[in-house]
Amino acid sequence: MITSHHNPALQDVRRLLARKRTGSPPRFVAEGEDLLAAADAAGWAPLLRLRAGEDVSAEALARVSSLASGTRELGVYEERWSRPAGPTCVALWGVGDPGNVGTVLRGALAFGAASVVIGPGTADPYGPKAVRASMGAIFAMPVARAATLDELPAPRIALAAREGEPLSRADGGATLLIGAERDGLPREVVAGCDAVRHIPIHGESLNAAMAATVALYEVTR
Amino acid sequence: MITSHHNPALQDVRRLLARKRTGSPPRFVAEGEDLLAAADAAGWAPLLRLRAGEDVSAEALARVSSLASGTRELGVYEERWSRPAGPTCVALWGVGDPGNVGTVLRGALAFGAASVVIGPGTADPYGPKAVRASMGAIFAMPVARAATLDELPAPRIALAAREGEPLSRADGGATLLIGAERDGLPREVVAGCDAVRHIPIHGESLNAAMAATVALYEVTR
Repeated sequence: MITSHHNPALQDVRRLLARKRTGSPPRFVAEGEDLLAAADAAGWAPLLRLRAGEDVSAEALARVSSLASGTRELGVYEERWSRPAGPTCVALWGVGDPGNVGTVLRGALAFGAASVVIGPGTADPYGPKAVRASMGAIFAMPVARAATLDELPAPRIALAAREGEPLSRADGGATLLIGAERDGLPREVVAGCDAVRHIPIHGESLNAAMAATVALYEVTR
Repeated sequence: MITSHHNPALQDVRRLLARKRTGSPPRFVAEGEDLLAAADAAGWAPLLRLRAGEDVSAEALARVSSLASGTRELGVYEERWSRPAGPTCVALWGVGDPGNVGTVLRGALAFGAASVVIGPGTADPYGPKAVRASMGAIFAMPVARAATLDELPAPRIALAAREGEPLSRADGGATLLIGAERDGLPREVVAGCDAVRHIPIHGESLNAAMAATVALYEVTR
């Protein structure tokens, strides 16, 4: 049983949680029994699994955990990257908050999207906060990367505040582009899309995760 | 200018942020220029306003801030409690996560609910995490407390996973009851409602904030 947090495997876990160097092929860490159960259910085999009191002392595990309260169990997995796929696809452009990225994964899973695309300026979906916010959806929802609009399945719909027509179920079977909370999508991205839609709201705005969830609900009904 | 974090006003702010003793009438703290601007826009006058470099040194303000990065400005306000009001009302029952409570406030504002009711076991909407997650909606959305179903405007609709009919726009003008992420609403609460509805999803579940946002979107269209 590992008892020192200087142990090389634990040091590796700590580096993976800091997302400094994830190796080749890239790896990530999931912490907590619920996430590991989600990985098991989705058929992801861990490269390494550490249980407090079995493989490693609780103290040493707590020292590398990203959770303030520590963790009883963690697993190291290989990242999996898919290609952007439809018919319903969510593409995040400039969504820097990892909690929002994880929540979008969860909403995408709930409403049956085919993939979530991580565009420029968007938080790492395999970072610890995004993995945790996904509540295990990271193991069930294909994630892809894209640098340009061309890489996204057409048609492409820009979701913007108070622009274009209201989003409706007629917009199903498209890639929905979601921008940053304050700034929204860059103008050239909106201009490059096939349509612009908005979610009709009172008051200020929705965050990226709320907008994506409502949009997916609308177009997948 | 206040330069010591032992200053009584700063100690009071620290206690308010810890929600240990909020005084009579109860008060709360909002941190950050965006929240204070939202308060100003909604016509809430602060009991106390502290600006780094003007009223207080940046160092002393950072010592009492609830934000890891500190804050440049904070305000102390009186809490405002309304009565549960419809036609569209959201009632949270056992939603312990303050971030979710704040996000529900934001969704309620976006989709025009008349009030958000804080039921048993639900996080304090005036705590620092909820206030922050509300992105200022705490200043625009009436919040109320309730201990029993009787206090909620009728009809009352229990939102449950995979129970009853799918929620539809025909369910508008009701109180939507939202339960805890894992356990949902207590059986006796579901039994006491006038109807049970669900949001049709694949996969696991939505968190309380996502469920409330999608439900409000559906019933207020």
